[in-house]
Amino acid sequence: MLDDMLDYLKDIRARPVWQPIPAPVRARFTEALPSQPSPLAQVHASFMQDILPYTVGNAHPGFFGWVHGAGTPVGMLAEMLAAGLNANLGGRDHIPIEVERQVVQWMRELFSFPDTASGLFVTGTSMANLMSVLVARVRALGADVREDGLAAAGARLVAYTSAGAHGCIAQAMDLAGLGIRALRVIPMNAQYQIDTARLEAAIVLDRDAGLQPFFVAATAGSVDVGAIDDLGAVADIAARHGLWFHVDGAYGALGMLSAVVKPLLAGIERADSIAFDFHKWGQVPYDAGFVLMRDGELHYRAFASPAAYLRRDTRGMAAGSPWPCDFGPDLSRGFRALKTWFT
Amino acid sequence: MLDDMLDYLKDIRARPVWQPIPAPVRARFTEALPSQPSPLAQVHASFMQDILPYTVGNAHPGFFGWVHGAGTPVGMLAEMLAAGLNANLGGRDHIPIEVERQVVQWMRELFSFPDTASGLFVTGTSMANLMSVLVARVRALGADVREDGLAAAGARLVAYTSAGAHGCIAQAMDLAGLGIRALRVIPMNAQYQIDTARLEAAIVLDRDAGLQPFFVAATAGSVDVGAIDDLGAVADIAARHGLWFHVDGAYGALGMLSAVVKPLLAGIERADSIAFDFHKWGQVPYDAGFVLMRDGELHYRAFASPAAYLRRDTRGMAAGSPWPCDFGPDLSRGFRALKTWFT
Repeated sequence: MLDDMLDYLKDIRARPVWQPIPAPVRARFTEALPSQPSPLAQVHASFMQDILPYTVGNAHPGFFGWVHGAGTPVGMLAEMLAAGLNANLGGRDHIPIEVERQVVQWMRELFSFPDTASGLFVTGTSMANLMSVLVARVRALGADVREDGLAAAGARLVAYTSAGAHGCIAQAMDLAGLGIRALRVIPMNAQYQIDTARLEAAIVLDRDAGLQPFFVAATAGSVDVGAIDDLGAVADIAARHGLWFHVDGAYGALGMLSAVVKPLLAGIERADSIAFDFHKWGQVPYDAGFVLMRDGELHYRAFASPAAYLRRDTRGMAAGSPWPCDFGPDLSRGFRALKTWFT
Repeated sequence: MLDDMLDYLKDIRARPVWQPIPAPVRARFTEALPSQPSPLAQVHASFMQDILPYTVGNAHPGFFGWVHGAGTPVGMLAEMLAAGLNANLGGRDHIPIEVERQVVQWMRELFSFPDTASGLFVTGTSMANLMSVLVARVRALGADVREDGLAAAGARLVAYTSAGAHGCIAQAMDLAGLGIRALRVIPMNAQYQIDTARLEAAIVLDRDAGLQPFFVAATAGSVDVGAIDDLGAVADIAARHGLWFHVDGAYGALGMLSAVVKPLLAGIERADSIAFDFHKWGQVPYDAGFVLMRDGELHYRAFASPAAYLRRDTRGMAAGSPWPCDFGPDLSRGFRALKTWFT
């Protein structure tokens, strides 16, 4: 099976980027729940015949579009090893947690964040953006909002982003219960960046109207044209008005690894939170999103919820608190860090 | 590498379940971000020496606790194939989507849900529970809540669960902005099930007080003692009072595959939503959570948000709408379905 997969990746240039799915192949995936086990060889043959040829083609060098990463054979091997270990990165004391922590440390270095910053692997930037809104909400309203909900104190919160921003910023406002209407969509300038004069004017207007501006999401690599907002200018405005400064760097933030792109990202080191995907420019296999938070303590306070069956010990398998599950929405967590570490 | 991993799983009985991490090994994971690539053989050697021996031991037959699945070699191989394909299950027309749809169909069959029911792979039951709260919120308040937020109409929503429920139910209320205090924690009866008389009394009391009861989460397999709520009785109460009936079946719901456990789950087929993990009793490698929603149309309305760069076509690679990303918080999505399909 490993050889088949490596052969596939080696010969991928000779294959079509994408081909339509023949109706009989599609129909095979409407068969009922099997009541008996199937031999592995048969399942594998079905994979080779019915699945392998009909993928979206993002691993193909001729593929171009939708900001998909291609993955690498190294990432594939690491994912196989991770599945063999079958580690749950929610918590407890085991080395996979240290691997994730090392990647967090690397990202602190890359973005010049302090040692007290925290980070977490998540499915993707959509989730990382949502988490950033949730932590900013706790900074704006205090941890009581977790008990009391938004109905009491949340009515006045407003956020800002650019017309070029990804739709998941609006979705984050929706899912967090703040409402899409509480997100002000600021027009772009001629360089497709957020118009910073209009951003500041909108904040002042909202504040004068008795609202509570709390969050601004800048974009590093817009999905339509790849524009990078003037991060330094947005950081200045956020600092002046006490807003949380978030950078949606889904595919642009890892440009920090390139000497050419890095200067365009100046100001990103001042962010309160940065979201990005290793599965895009990082070419790590899907999925491997990441969020970095400047204030690790606040991040913890926004998500931690100790329960008796998650009792921590000071030694043994249940040691090592705080656990990754204290920093995000998931308790069972896959070992996304390993494929990133390998890549 | 594949041989190493298969050898490891074959000989796992001869190894310790868990061993403390020596300080020098732990220290190795504090090294700085490498500026040069490392040879794969060296990274692999480091994995074998520093990572493999220091995991939590849940793949070991001597491991017992915390409801971890063990995984299987078949799941591991499937995960390797999925990483090689590197499919993004967010959308477009490719066969991996059909594989996920087939698993959705299998789950409809398993739980006697209608053809109009929808389903989605997610990281785990924590996320599946949160999504169920979000869809129930849209049923209670209408899709306008996505635009307007909870401050306007959400103040009166209250939810119910048992004192034996998993902490992620309270977390779902927190993250959705409804607040943990809006979750009524109903005491358990002598069988560690939710006390249905008290549940109904609490609903009546809240309604009399002018509140809006909207959601009840029953538990199928409690995390402390494995108790299964009387799902039929909870379904009756939910129907009587117009509540969304959710089942948190994180590790119990797949008991439907066992002739012994299935009768204990009677009533689950009446749920509005069911959340569970293939990575527990299903032994699929981490992570592979799943949510099943009876009303697929409502599910779509609670999450869909078309954006221009996600334009759908009627043919070619961008066809096949609705896409999985229309049903959940993630746009980039890993191929969790394949390891489940193989297993």
